Amino acid sequence: MHWETKDGTVNANYFGSITQASTVLLGTDPSGKDVYIPMKDMIPMVDPNNLVVDGWDISGASIAEAMKRAKVLDYNLQTQLIPLMKDMRPRKAIFDSEFIAANQSQRADNVIESHDKWTQIGLIRDDIREFKCKHNLETIIVLWTANTERFMDLTDGIHDTVDSLIGAIKRNEAEIAPSVLYAVAAILEKCTFINGSPQNTFIPGLIDLAEREGVFIAGDDFKSGQTKFKSVLVDFLVSAGIKPCSIVSYNHLGNNDGLNLSAPKQFRSKEISKSNVVDDMVASNQVLYGQGIEKPDHCVVIKYVPYVADSKRAMDEYVSELMLGGLNTIVVHNTCQDSLLASPIILDLTILAELCQRVTFQLHNNCVSTSGKYQSFNSVLSLLSYLCKAPLVERGGRVVNALFKQRASIENILRALLSLPPLNHMDLEYKCS
Amino acid sequence: MHWETKDGTVNANYFGSITQASTVLLGTDPSGKDVYIPMKDMIPMVDPNNLVVDGWDISGASIAEAMKRAKVLDYNLQTQLIPLMKDMRPRKAIFDSEFIAANQSQRADNVIESHDKWTQIGLIRDDIREFKCKHNLETIIVLWTANTERFMDLTDGIHDTVDSLIGAIKRNEAEIAPSVLYAVAAILEKCTFINGSPQNTFIPGLIDLAEREGVFIAGDDFKSGQTKFKSVLVDFLVSAGIKPCSIVSYNHLGNNDGLNLSAPKQFRSKEISKSNVVDDMVASNQVLYGQGIEKPDHCVVIKYVPYVADSKRAMDEYVSELMLGGLNTIVVHNTCQDSLLASPIILDLTILAELCQRVTFQLHNNCVSTSGKYQSFNSVLSLLSYLCKAPLVERGGRVVNALFKQRASIENILRALLSLPPLNHMDLEYKCS
Amino acid sequence: MHWETKDGTVNANYFGSITQASTVLLGTDPSGKDVYIPMKDMIPMVDPNNLVVDGWDISGASIAEAMKRAKVLDYNLQTQLIPLMKDMRPRKAIFDSEFIAANQSQRADNVIESHDKWTQIGLIRDDIREFKCKHNLETIIVLWTANTERFMDLTDGIHDTVDSLIGAIKRNEAEIAPSVLYAVAAILEKCTFINGSPQNTFIPGLIDLAEREGVFIAGDDFKSGQTKFKSVLVDFLVSAGIKPCSIVSYNHLGNNDGLNLSAPKQFRSKEISKSNVVDDMVASNQVLYGQGIEKPDHCVVIKYVPYVADSKRAMDEYVSELMLGGLNTIVVHNTCQDSLLASPIILDLTILAELCQRVTFQLHNNCVSTSGKYQSFNSVLSLLSYLCKAPLVERGGRVVNALFKQRASIENILRALLSLPPLNHMDLEYKCS
Amino acid sequence: MHWETKDGTVNANYFGSITQASTVLLGTDPSGKDVYIPMKDMIPMVDPNNLVVDGWDISGASIAEAMKRAKVLDYNLQTQLIPLMKDMRPRKAIFDSEFIAANQSQRADNVIESHDKWTQIGLIRDDIREFKCKHNLETIIVLWTANTERFMDLTDGIHDTVDSLIGAIKRNEAEIAPSVLYAVAAILEKCTFINGSPQNTFIPGLIDLAEREGVFIAGDDFKSGQTKFKSVLVDFLVSAGIKPCSIVSYNHLGNNDGLNLSAPKQFRSKEISKSNVVDDMVASNQVLYGQGIEKPDHCVVIKYVPYVADSKRAMDEYVSELMLGGLNTIVVHNTCQDSLLASPIILDLTILAELCQRVTFQLHNNCVSTSGKYQSFNSVLSLLSYLCKAPLVERGGRVVNALFKQRASIENILRALLSLPPLNHMDLEYKCS
Ligand SMILES: NC(=O)C1=CN([C@@H]2O[C@H](COP(=O)(O)OP(=O)(O)OC[C@H]3O[C@@H](n4cnc5c(N)ncnc54)[C@H](O)[C@@H]3O)[C@@H](O)[C@H]2O)C=CC1
Ligand SMILES: NC(=O)C1=CN([C@@H]2O[C@H](COP(=O)(O)OP(=O)(O)OC[C@H]3O[C@@H](n4cnc5c(N)ncnc54)[C@H](O)[C@@H]3O)[C@@H](O)[C@H]2O)C=CC1
Ligand SMILES: NC(=O)C1=CN([C@@H]2O[C@H](COP(=O)(O)OP(=O)(O)OC[C@H]3O[C@@H](n4cnc5c(N)ncnc54)[C@H](O)[C@@H]3O)[C@@H](O)[C@H]2O)C=CC1
Ligand SMILES: NC(=O)C1=CN([C@@H]2O[C@H](COP(=O)(O)OP(=O)(O)OC[C@H]3O[C@@H](n4cnc5c(N)ncnc54)[C@H](O)[C@@H]3O)[C@@H](O)[C@H]2O)C=CC1
Repeated sequence: MHWETKDGTVNANYFGSITQASTVLLGTDPSGKDVYIPMKDMIPMVDPNNLVVDGWDISGASIAEAMKRAKVLDYNLQTQLIPLMKDMRPRKAIFDSEFIAANQSQRADNVIESHDKWTQIGLIRDDIREFKCKHNLETIIVLWTANTERFMDLTDGIHDTVDSLIGAIKRNEAEIAPSVLYAVAAILEKCTFINGSPQNTFIPGLIDLAEREGVFIAGDDFKSGQTKFKSVLVDFLVSAGIKPCSIVSYNHLGNNDGLNLSAPKQFRSKEISKSNVVDDMVASNQVLYGQGIEKPDHCVVIKYVPYVADSKRAMDEYVSELMLGGLNTIVVHNTCQDSLLASPIILDLTILAELCQRVTFQLHNNCVSTSGKYQSFNSVLSLLSYLCKAPLVERGGRVVNALFKQRASIENILRALLSLPPLNHMDLEYKCS
Repeated sequence: MHWETKDGTVNANYFGSITQASTVLLGTDPSGKDVYIPMKDMIPMVDPNNLVVDGWDISGASIAEAMKRAKVLDYNLQTQLIPLMKDMRPRKAIFDSEFIAANQSQRADNVIESHDKWTQIGLIRDDIREFKCKHNLETIIVLWTANTERFMDLTDGIHDTVDSLIGAIKRNEAEIAPSVLYAVAAILEKCTFINGSPQNTFIPGLIDLAEREGVFIAGDDFKSGQTKFKSVLVDFLVSAGIKPCSIVSYNHLGNNDGLNLSAPKQFRSKEISKSNVVDDMVASNQVLYGQGIEKPDHCVVIKYVPYVADSKRAMDEYVSELMLGGLNTIVVHNTCQDSLLASPIILDLTILAELCQRVTFQLHNNCVSTSGKYQSFNSVLSLLSYLCKAPLVERGGRVVNALFKQRASIENILRALLSLPPLNHMDLEYKCS
Repeated sequence: MHWETKDGTVNANYFGSITQASTVLLGTDPSGKDVYIPMKDMIPMVDPNNLVVDGWDISGASIAEAMKRAKVLDYNLQTQLIPLMKDMRPRKAIFDSEFIAANQSQRADNVIESHDKWTQIGLIRDDIREFKCKHNLETIIVLWTANTERFMDLTDGIHDTVDSLIGAIKRNEAEIAPSVLYAVAAILEKCTFINGSPQNTFIPGLIDLAEREGVFIAGDDFKSGQTKFKSVLVDFLVSAGIKPCSIVSYNHLGNNDGLNLSAPKQFRSKEISKSNVVDDMVASNQVLYGQGIEKPDHCVVIKYVPYVADSKRAMDEYVSELMLGGLNTIVVHNTCQDSLLASPIILDLTILAELCQRVTFQLHNNCVSTSGKYQSFNSVLSLLSYLCKAPLVERGGRVVNALFKQRASIENILRALLSLPPLNHMDLEYKCS
Repeated sequence: MHWETKDGTVNANYFGSITQASTVLLGTDPSGKDVYIPMKDMIPMVDPNNLVVDGWDISGASIAEAMKRAKVLDYNLQTQLIPLMKDMRPRKAIFDSEFIAANQSQRADNVIESHDKWTQIGLIRDDIREFKCKHNLETIIVLWTANTERFMDLTDGIHDTVDSLIGAIKRNEAEIAPSVLYAVAAILEKCTFINGSPQNTFIPGLIDLAEREGVFIAGDDFKSGQTKFKSVLVDFLVSAGIKPCSIVSYNHLGNNDGLNLSAPKQFRSKEISKSNVVDDMVASNQVLYGQGIEKPDHCVVIKYVPYVADSKRAMDEYVSELMLGGLNTIVVHNTCQDSLLASPIILDLTILAELCQRVTFQLHNNCVSTSGKYQSFNSVLSLLSYLCKAPLVERGGRVVNALFKQRASIENILRALLSLPPLNHMDLEYKCS
């Protein structure tokens, strides 16, 4: 598919997707030249063009209308897509005005009538089964990319165990967010569930449920723009022995996500998600920060500015200390199309999650091996951390926010599946005398 | 040492040095907590406070006067240092006005009288020996941190082999830069030689000489500020499947380095050094750039603006293509004290080079081993790439500019010296179900 | 007075003051060359070195300690000032924890004991008289540069008339802020009162009182940094026919003002003050904005970031529409020393207010004339708008935020006092054929 | 005319034109409300929709092709315009490869065959007459908006007087640029000639010719973006008593203007034009800069970066000194569509020049009067300075770069034509007590 702009013809592509548009070093060819191949060609992965998509939305607008309203795609691309999308409509959604901003209620014209949470789960499960059957699908992955909900207030007896949770749902307890209901439905249907928003969907009872059912879960919050950048920059500074002392991040955007986040509670979910991203790096360097007591000033602001629509602006300032009292001030202004950064991440999450479903392995001295007695990945897919602002990790697992380490994790596991050793960048074969 | 400023007392430190101020993950403690230790504590390394420093300069100013002229250190720190430094003066230097900017000639009041290059080398060698003897030193490392020279025009018969080079020096050929003469002197005295400037000091004949003498060399051009940042940012973008299409880098500074670089030929050396930094990353991703044909627009400007003195400003703009015709524009304004970023790099180069002199190893399947038949590193110390804008690598070696890979190289080799396996970030021990 | 820094000797000066450091075009000399003179030399004005300063503060720290705590002046300047300032202490202040942020209470160790507002006014009046007498002063100007208070909730019977106000104070009504009490004290002592903070000190009853007593008042909120810049930039754009559609202003600072403003109510005062600055410009251009209905998106954020101390950062983004759907995006990062920008404004306000006290004039066809029946300026000194973010103007007066117009107002009135015609920039004497 | 984009329908407009899209304060209405009217409605001016446009270009591409090549207008607007423009072709142009960049020669497929300068002038004059006659036009204004030429090397006997110039042209002297030939042709045809480029077209002989023929000339170099901004910002700072010490301006653009300016001589013309813009402001403030000896560091860079096309980027840094050694650093990143900023300036120049042709006036004490013995404006239309980066002024006239003064000049002269007094911003009618 292609369309015209003043700068020439644009072809549809998958830029911004690590699986589709990034490459991995395989090795060297006989002539000594490095051989890089697209990540997607390392191992059989789902082709994004073969995905079948369906979903729920509280707004009943057709996909064509939603595309128009979102003001993301070029007008001349929209024109081509409208005929293909005008008859696609989302399924009826679980709506609870308690959890998203009040300003969203006017969209809610396509909601499940029942107010009973267990009934709602049942309807969602029906949808999943109907969808699977209609398209004769092998596997389904459910991904939450709806509005950011406020954090749930966690209480024992409601959120702590599988039984509490199921019981509480059946009692129709108020403090259970729609995202949890979709997740329960998905897990009970044995579908991997991924959370692209920052709220605390993955309460203990839900993680337990996933483990009990042997289903994968991953999240939270797509790592698309400013935070991704920050997880690179702070890693760079701290690992260079430079000490970030003040990190200030301003954002403004004018899309519906911005409108929803203009409500304090929903903003708070996002703020939490964005705030912890430097913690592991700071904690790792006691030369700069002492024994974990000192932390840089860190502040995150998001404002709703309708005019800029989906063209999100991120302005950051990093002040760091250099040797002998010197200062380094880095100021960044970043303009991006928010949704075009997030879309390939959605694809990557789906494609990699599907791949993980097919992987079994055996550990030998912390090296993967595909022979012997096989096991699967943990229910919590921490491998997808690269794609998440607030990565959910296994019980006792290590939270890694540093982007290059997150990528190395994916790369080396893929290499292991090909029986290639991990890349260690020592290049000793060249370093001999 | 400490001094007062309006913001409080400042203590001397080594921020910005990877050996002194960065940490490395060793492993986990019994309770499962990650253990990070300062890189300098992994293995015995020279303590920077034990280094004895001497040098040559065409300007005869005492070190105290030079410090004042440079306007880098805080006034109240200078006041404390002056008594310690006022009697330290540089040795007479080899000066050739052909190679540095004409505007530098006025400084040249401390030059070796002889115009005969071989005699000059002899005098430098005398200095090295005298210095070693006077302080009873174990080893000496010579590092070029003098002005950027223009590139030499390479000719067979002068620069191509050891014999050509030595012959040409003895014939007093014009097209041999002072940096080469210092390097020859150092190598003949069995001293590691490091080039912190961008010019092409390391001509083939010189590399051969280092190999023949079994001496280490490393370079070129300290990677301190904008380029270091760029080697992080472009790596991040390209490995995320985002396509940088235009990279524009402006710099201005007002120190003597800036004055020297305001001459076109000297600027050209710097421009070359700064320009290749994205080449390996672009070449690695054929999805974005096709088979190496396409390249981003890349432009580098350096201007001399006396007012800003050593407070260097770097302004960059990166325009990248996202999915479906979207654009991402990152604008960066970076203020740093240029010399405070470069100083710890000088220390790191020295400390790591000294360490490398003491390392011997054996390769087993591309894994380092310290048992069996030992060998040393190649004369060309590519391990120091992290610290160099235009890393010199072994014949046939792989040029890596990506900063995180360069750091992984150092980290993993240090780990190998402790018999620890390289970090591969797979964290599989946590990923089991 | 002068002191040393790494960049050389710095001499004390009055940069940033329009009276002391800006010039005005007087006319042309016989050779046709333009003659500019410092504004202060146009007409006899108080020399800032002749001002005698005293004040109240809820914090009893000596001026030397306050200087140190503020981290504004260079350390070596502080060292010289300490002996001169260590015995200067502020007078006891009126404190009401209801009006400033709770985080300020810990400073309040120097407060008037009485909680009776009318008694408090009496004590402040005593201070003014004692000060005047002790130094044998001709005139006193009282200026509020204490913390930003929250807005008072205005009620008829308390704030609306002189009588209401005096009655309410005597009844010790809660909803009367300390700034009002100082203002009443000043006015009753016939002292000009200027408000450098954004809160609504100038309630109707207070303005009436000033008029009744024939005393000058001026405010509100020093126009020092980002807003000043904005009042230039938006004026420029709108008067060039370019349409600002989105104006986003982020600030962070780490001084005590920032700490106080981190409380929502105090921030709200500042937000109001900063928000109206473009309104008159937008309203003036119906081609761009229609009949006043449309307005640009405008958002102001202030965050407290201790690390940056008094080095305030302002980051703005202006998106404007050009011809035929084009866009212009201006992104600004501004670093300034907040207090060094505000200090000369305090001087200018004082010096110009004193001058205004001495001016009487007569109007002929909207041209000033100093002969005939004289009158003074209105009690509300709108002439000082140039120095105020939210200029208070006479009843029915025109609010002008555009900075160049505000300056022209001062310049032309000063010229009028010299019997010079206003500058109109037509330069017709040159434009003849 | 309107077209669709993802952000909605866009209507054609004249944003960025002071005559069409800015307003002027007329006075106050009976209720005391300010009355602003569009500048174009103050006095009868040509409506831009009534202009008839024709021109010469060395490239014979049709206007439709040129529009496409320029990548300025939205694709869907182009689609509508193509049918209207595809048959419009420029007339054959005077081409001299000596004066514009070598990289432009490939476009030169539509040039006047004759190499004789006087013949070339004759052909251009024929074109003007033919055009006038064909459309039955009242008046013609010729405006140079072709490539920036290099500066001519001025020599007495060629450039100094009318006779020298005419003689030199007839002798076919090499050092006379095409822009001069067009200007001579225009003037001889009694057409106002405006120079939108920076080169020194207006040599003394040409100015004399214009005066002799009683024809208007104006220039040089459209003031559209970064320089316009600078002429606002520096005026603001200096007139606030703040001292700019370093002004660094970087630009990059990828359109054909950028390509032409990538040649050193053509860049030099632009550099000169951009460099003098702060001189008058600096010279006006001896408090900050002493008696004209000191000047801020000022540096201007333009780079050709094809990828950004017409989306020009300007990055500026202004470092200024505040009171007591404080610093203020303003960093600006400005993205604009270069051609959409320049187009309304072309219209304004034309419309205002036409108006000036119709104005006659009489001076009374430096106030304009339209009664009595009338005279016209000087041949050099300095009134258009607002629109020019390097304003050409009358012999002995005052060069004013400060943008607000330039605008006041236009505004007040227009008011004078309506017998309104100039605006002086004193607002004394409100300031009475
Ligand atoms: N760059 C990006 O776009 C990123 C987005 N995210 C998160 O992804 C989420 C989606 O972002 P956008 O698509 O921009 O937001 P959006 O507001 O445009 O779309 C969210 C959709 O969810 C629907 N919705 C709300 N509640 C629902 C429910 N209970 N059931 C079903 N549908 C429901 C809404 O009607 C709306 O159509 C947000 O939480 C956002 O914070 C996270 C990181 C990056
Ligand atoms: N951030 C930084 O400071 C970086 C510096 N560099 C390079 O390091 C070098 C030094 O930089 P700076 O110290 O800032 O420059 P500098 O100009 O302050 O110091 C260079 C010194 O070398 C002396 N010199 C010149 N020719 C000499 C010769 N033939 N023999 C002995 N001494 C000689 C000069 O007199 C001067 O004192 C430059 O080439 C620069 O490009 C590279 C990257 C980063
Ligand atoms: N650039 C600037 O510094 C600007 C400052 N302002 C305003 O000026 C005011 C002062 O600013 P800073 O000096 O930076 O703040 P600051 O917080 O450093 O100083 C305020 C002082 O007022 C004292 N104070 C508080 N309440 C008092 C009371 N009732 N009576 C007497 N003293 C009292 C505090 O103890 C403190 O010492 C603030 O309202 C600020 O918003 C306005 C515009 C610009
Ligand atoms: N924002 C802007 O676009 C501004 C433009 N300018 C100046 O305006 C001029 C035009 O700018 P653009 O339209 O962007 O450039 P452009 O390069 O797109 O257009 C110039 C045109 O002039 C033609 N040309 C060259 N020599 C000629 C000759 N001797 N006779 C007739 N035609 C000739 C070229 O073929 C080309 O079509 C340049 O000098 C530029 O520096 C000045 C200030 C601002």
